[in-house]
Amino acid sequence: MNHDQATLEQPFDREPPQRPRSTPAPVTVSVLEEARRLTEPVIRAGLDRLDPDTRHACGYHLGYWDADGSPLDAGGKGVRPALAVLSARAAGVRGGAPRAGVVAAAACELVHNFSLLHDDLMDGDTERRHRKTVWARFGPASAILAGDAMLALANELLAEAGSPTTAAALGHLNLTTRRLVKGQAADLAFEKRARVTLSECLQMAEDKTGALLACSASLGAMLVGAPARTTAALADYGAHLGLAFQLIDDLLGIWGTPARTGKPVWSDLRARKKSLPVVVALASDRPAGGQLRRMYAEGALQDEAALAEMANLVDRAGGRAWTEARAERESAAAVAALAGLDGPASVRAELAALAELLCRRTY
Amino acid sequence: MNHDQATLEQPFDREPPQRPRSTPAPVTVSVLEEARRLTEPVIRAGLDRLDPDTRHACGYHLGYWDADGSPLDAGGKGVRPALAVLSARAAGVRGGAPRAGVVAAAACELVHNFSLLHDDLMDGDTERRHRKTVWARFGPASAILAGDAMLALANELLAEAGSPTTAAALGHLNLTTRRLVKGQAADLAFEKRARVTLSECLQMAEDKTGALLACSASLGAMLVGAPARTTAALADYGAHLGLAFQLIDDLLGIWGTPARTGKPVWSDLRARKKSLPVVVALASDRPAGGQLRRMYAEGALQDEAALAEMANLVDRAGGRAWTEARAERESAAAVAALAGLDGPASVRAELAALAELLCRRTY
Repeated sequence: MNHDQATLEQPFDREPPQRPRSTPAPVTVSVLEEARRLTEPVIRAGLDRLDPDTRHACGYHLGYWDADGSPLDAGGKGVRPALAVLSARAAGVRGGAPRAGVVAAAACELVHNFSLLHDDLMDGDTERRHRKTVWARFGPASAILAGDAMLALANELLAEAGSPTTAAALGHLNLTTRRLVKGQAADLAFEKRARVTLSECLQMAEDKTGALLACSASLGAMLVGAPARTTAALADYGAHLGLAFQLIDDLLGIWGTPARTGKPVWSDLRARKKSLPVVVALASDRPAGGQLRRMYAEGALQDEAALAEMANLVDRAGGRAWTEARAERESAAAVAALAGLDGPASVRAELAALAELLCRRTY
Repeated sequence: MNHDQATLEQPFDREPPQRPRSTPAPVTVSVLEEARRLTEPVIRAGLDRLDPDTRHACGYHLGYWDADGSPLDAGGKGVRPALAVLSARAAGVRGGAPRAGVVAAAACELVHNFSLLHDDLMDGDTERRHRKTVWARFGPASAILAGDAMLALANELLAEAGSPTTAAALGHLNLTTRRLVKGQAADLAFEKRARVTLSECLQMAEDKTGALLACSASLGAMLVGAPARTTAALADYGAHLGLAFQLIDDLLGIWGTPARTGKPVWSDLRARKKSLPVVVALASDRPAGGQLRRMYAEGALQDEAALAEMANLVDRAGGRAWTEARAERESAAAVAALAGLDGPASVRAELAALAELLCRRTY
């Protein structure tokens, strides 16, 4: 199969896993769309509180407008808003998305984008979602300030939620932000180290991706005053989903189609990222593992042929199969965690379908 | 008078203002020391929540330890903690510093240092408090992450304050953080512009310095549930004090003694900062104003003699006298705002003495 033929149903250029899977229900896609529709006006109104230059950089990053200010519709997937909106619904509040879920959604999406703005600068990434990154377009200071503003705005909007549990929710959001920092610090440190253990790498993924998905999946429920058992089950779902999400991301970082992922081809291998498939392959005792270790040690090789060979070695050393299997397992664990929820069965079904969709994505 | 002879009583190398002033009471210095003594353990315990690398960079920046981890005592002045602790006391809570004041102090000090970490990187400043800045010592990514972690930690600690007004306090702290971002964005933009009006420059100082001093002076009172009239009077005091503080900072940035300020000599002029004395001088119709405009337009001149000549022109164009007079006025307005307070007279006196001390500082 050609990379360009990859579809939502066949995410990678190999056979899909054999376990029978339901087709992602259209309802799941509409959950993503609905959450974006509810959350975007709150974020846009938040941006209007910022000074014009910082507002412009933030809206550019979020895909609301282009560098010259012309309107765009080029945002992210909106996974975190969808989780936050569903989270408030899972706590049993009837009738559409309660306001608290939307505020939690805006806060989580802003924290996510704060981290992207700063990470892109630290990683030296010049492209995201098919467009220049903020630091590459407006300079490093703009990216730092836009990220800072988004983090402050996330906290400010959440502080205005007007719930008795607002302070607890803020504590949770900022603990999560600290974990994002910890994950990024580890990610950067790993690039300079010759050896990284699988357990260190999993911990990094849990911090960098799992923590904010767990927070998104539980913050709405926390804000509407759900019992601890409910928020714990939702956080557990989000943590497993987050790890699955990162595993898929790592696969797409090597075998994804740049036209769909919006990232330059081979970018992870070029940066010698210690992503999960790579770490598994580097630790492998198969001959391909040894060859890959030698190539990773020779830092200078950057040409396309060498990068394609590295991708091939990661696959042959078992890094790809392991990552796919682990993503399956984490996705299943996420769905299993939903058994602990008392809320409406329809919301549980939507959360399960969302997990399914995200693990079959190609972008 | 030689710069090196400048003391707390004679802050500038010219005659002190003629208005009779009381000698700063030793009690004021002890307020700064006491606030630091109360706040530092809370911040240190907060840093222990961070990953080791980020914690190390934060503690290095705060002057708790050196780059090799050996203990230091090289922190900042602790103005914001002192204001926050006094703020809670001004609201009439008896018996030492209430816990809420200390939490507010830690949060404000962390937000302040978050902004220093990021600003030093954006401004390219390599030295602060007589030591290498974090980005110059550990690299840009460390400074970004340490700043991010401090901002998250400020919010996390404040979220744990356990007061009915915690959420409102968090809203206020993050609105303030947005104003820091706005002020820094303006500061950077001004460096690239040929003309900046005095009103733009004052607005920038109010955002960059006034906002956080206003927040520090009112957050403790807000957390202990003081009436709006009290927090408003304290915020008013802090805003005027902040502007005075920045005006003095701008004077020290040109005529301060590097051995005391910890900043390289002429650093503001070298960077062509549009500080307040400079903006006033650039707008002056005296001959010195015209000469200064020509020198500022010729961006390349960086040698000591040229910088000394620029400082001289700022003085002769009236930038120095205007700034000194305005600092006096803002300091007096800060003290006048305290008349609106009902709290203990001793706290009002301490706040007034603190304003006096900060406007006579040489570092």
